[in-house]
Amino acid sequence: MQPIVTLLTDFGLMDPFVAEMKGVILSVCPDANIIDISHLVEKFDVRKGAFLLAAANPYFPRGTVHVAVVDPGVGSERRAIVIETNKSLLVGPDNGLMIPAATIDGILHVYRLTNRSLMRNEISSTFHGRDVFAPAAAHLACGTAPRECGAEIKDYVKPEFTQITLKGRTVTCEVFHIDSFGNVITNLSQVELSKLNLKLGAKIPLAVGGRRVSARLVQTYSDLNRGEIGILTGSHGFLELACREGSAAKRIRVRRGSVVRVYGE
Amino acid sequence: MQPIVTLLTDFGLMDPFVAEMKGVILSVCPDANIIDISHLVEKFDVRKGAFLLAAANPYFPRGTVHVAVVDPGVGSERRAIVIETNKSLLVGPDNGLMIPAATIDGILHVYRLTNRSLMRNEISSTFHGRDVFAPAAAHLACGTAPRECGAEIKDYVKPEFTQITLKGRTVTCEVFHIDSFGNVITNLSQVELSKLNLKLGAKIPLAVGGRRVSARLVQTYSDLNRGEIGILTGSHGFLELACREGSAAKRIRVRRGSVVRVYGE
Amino acid sequence: MQPIVTLLTDFGLMDPFVAEMKGVILSVCPDANIIDISHLVEKFDVRKGAFLLAAANPYFPRGTVHVAVVDPGVGSERRAIVIETNKSLLVGPDNGLMIPAATIDGILHVYRLTNRSLMRNEISSTFHGRDVFAPAAAHLACGTAPRECGAEIKDYVKPEFTQITLKGRTVTCEVFHIDSFGNVITNLSQVELSKLNLKLGAKIPLAVGGRRVSARLVQTYSDLNRGEIGILTGSHGFLELACREGSAAKRIRVRRGSVVRVYGE
Repeated sequence: MQPIVTLLTDFGLMDPFVAEMKGVILSVCPDANIIDISHLVEKFDVRKGAFLLAAANPYFPRGTVHVAVVDPGVGSERRAIVIETNKSLLVGPDNGLMIPAATIDGILHVYRLTNRSLMRNEISSTFHGRDVFAPAAAHLACGTAPRECGAEIKDYVKPEFTQITLKGRTVTCEVFHIDSFGNVITNLSQVELSKLNLKLGAKIPLAVGGRRVSARLVQTYSDLNRGEIGILTGSHGFLELACREGSAAKRIRVRRGSVVRVYGE
Repeated sequence: MQPIVTLLTDFGLMDPFVAEMKGVILSVCPDANIIDISHLVEKFDVRKGAFLLAAANPYFPRGTVHVAVVDPGVGSERRAIVIETNKSLLVGPDNGLMIPAATIDGILHVYRLTNRSLMRNEISSTFHGRDVFAPAAAHLACGTAPRECGAEIKDYVKPEFTQITLKGRTVTCEVFHIDSFGNVITNLSQVELSKLNLKLGAKIPLAVGGRRVSARLVQTYSDLNRGEIGILTGSHGFLELACREGSAAKRIRVRRGSVVRVYGE
Repeated sequence: MQPIVTLLTDFGLMDPFVAEMKGVILSVCPDANIIDISHLVEKFDVRKGAFLLAAANPYFPRGTVHVAVVDPGVGSERRAIVIETNKSLLVGPDNGLMIPAATIDGILHVYRLTNRSLMRNEISSTFHGRDVFAPAAAHLACGTAPRECGAEIKDYVKPEFTQITLKGRTVTCEVFHIDSFGNVITNLSQVELSKLNLKLGAKIPLAVGGRRVSARLVQTYSDLNRGEIGILTGSHGFLELACREGSAAKRIRVRRGSVVRVYGE
């Protein structure tokens, strides 16, 4: 069985950066099966990268090594870390990027990555993805123990998660992601949503970015009429606003970070 | 030899969807060699997806499993199917998407995909690519027999193909695809074209979307002068309009679906 | 160990072209590990393709086979070639595209690719990537000796490199690439730059496309203040202009090919 190494970056697809990382990985661990999660994270958007990694990670097999590089602090004092979870290893900068994905698995240990023998001989000051993270991940994929990376640390950077609040029958949450279909994904999980006791098929009053919207609660996109706005539990278990064969984001003119209120009965 | 699983979707490259499918496939069939056909099919454009799959399929080795997901009806009554051809297996929605590719190979059997043991335990109502098609394809790639997927059916959805017509010396066909170079690909095959007895190098009168164009019949792009419009048989065996180192589609202002008339002598 | 075959093209990601090449490669050499370098080279931009290939190639393991297709002359008299270097094999058109990458490795032999048994039976006149280069590369990856491709040649096309000039304490160089972060990469190598004896942290006077700019010489992006323009040696060893968490290219309004002058003390 080939060890799996995934890549998540904000490098885009027109530069040689991603290929250089792959070349480095295959030089260290020729059997690695390299899988792209995405390279189209908005530049420096650590939070978006964290969302994508946390969304994809649960579907990968035990033993997968994830390399994540959204790294505005490259070359600075920010540390390189390796996270060992119950299921996978994650390699990247200590800026919170990997914590949501690792938390889902269950974090066992976080190591500072300082062992130079796991890195390229020459380390540029601007491209640790290629010179530090990729070779270390390849060594880990080929069997190096995580504790050989460096000293265990406890004070790794934890990102601040958006809180959701429930007041009376009103939940306040936030737009977390807008996918390429224009679906508007919030941070309101199915568990929280169920507390509102909404009825399938009912028109639910919402406020999205301050504007009033009424949206039918459905199970899937095709339950909606063409062009109708609805809400449903999306494939990652979060409340989303959708428009059948259209873009809910454009229709409602919503952006990531917009506040969403859902009014229960 | 690793089993090959290809993916064709309209999911784009900035969301976690494609990576989730890959994680699921590798969880079921760790040896799978996953190859992307394209994820940039226009959203819900079943016909464009069908064209891309039919174009790419003939070049893949015997035994390839194709997963195709352009699926506006996800979660509705539309069925999931597995097509067994002389050469490959195709897994996806029963909406016509896979029929042109399968027809080229020669369809042997079409099975409804209902066997829950080939799917993920939890099935979302919005992402069957990940929860139904990907795991089933992975099981098939690892040796599960297609007939274990479900009952054989005959009434699968057959897409309507555009007809070409020959009246006197005039052929009427249609723009089927515009590639990223701006080449305008019609549905007129070399076999049909040859009936017009056009002479290589001759200026051929055409009507494209109602506008008159005169285009030299050549063998390859570099036979044209820079900026000249020509016609030739493209790499998939269909008549195309091209402009050397330029976009024929922009020059002629043509769109997919535009009617093309070719006037023989 | 799987043989590695990389692909670099200007085909984009929405057409079936790249997938067809991959299908052909896997049909000939089922064990090939196919890695994309980039398919987003600007159409027909041989020079940009040459830069990307030369940038990525050093990071791939010995024995890698690179297929490069930026090929405005497809179907014309331009020759197909195979380059054997100290480290890798390169397969593509004889238009200079592969020479910078091959030169870094050290060119041993250049063969004309004429052996029909290494190509597909039917060769289209517009898609040699699929019909000529991909199958030949797959045969090479699976062990065919390069000299079986065809006769050795010496008169392969050598691209003209931009020269840099040093007059007094002023170096004149050129913008070679603008990456997706907006970093402006010149062709001035660290070796040449060091002749100017610039001091880390000093404000360096520059002329970029005729406009005066003053930029601090730093080691990495995070040494800059947010929005500040700086210069540094990038991850490929060339002088680049950067703007912390912003696009230097947009700020300075510079384009590829713009002349850059660096004024030493």
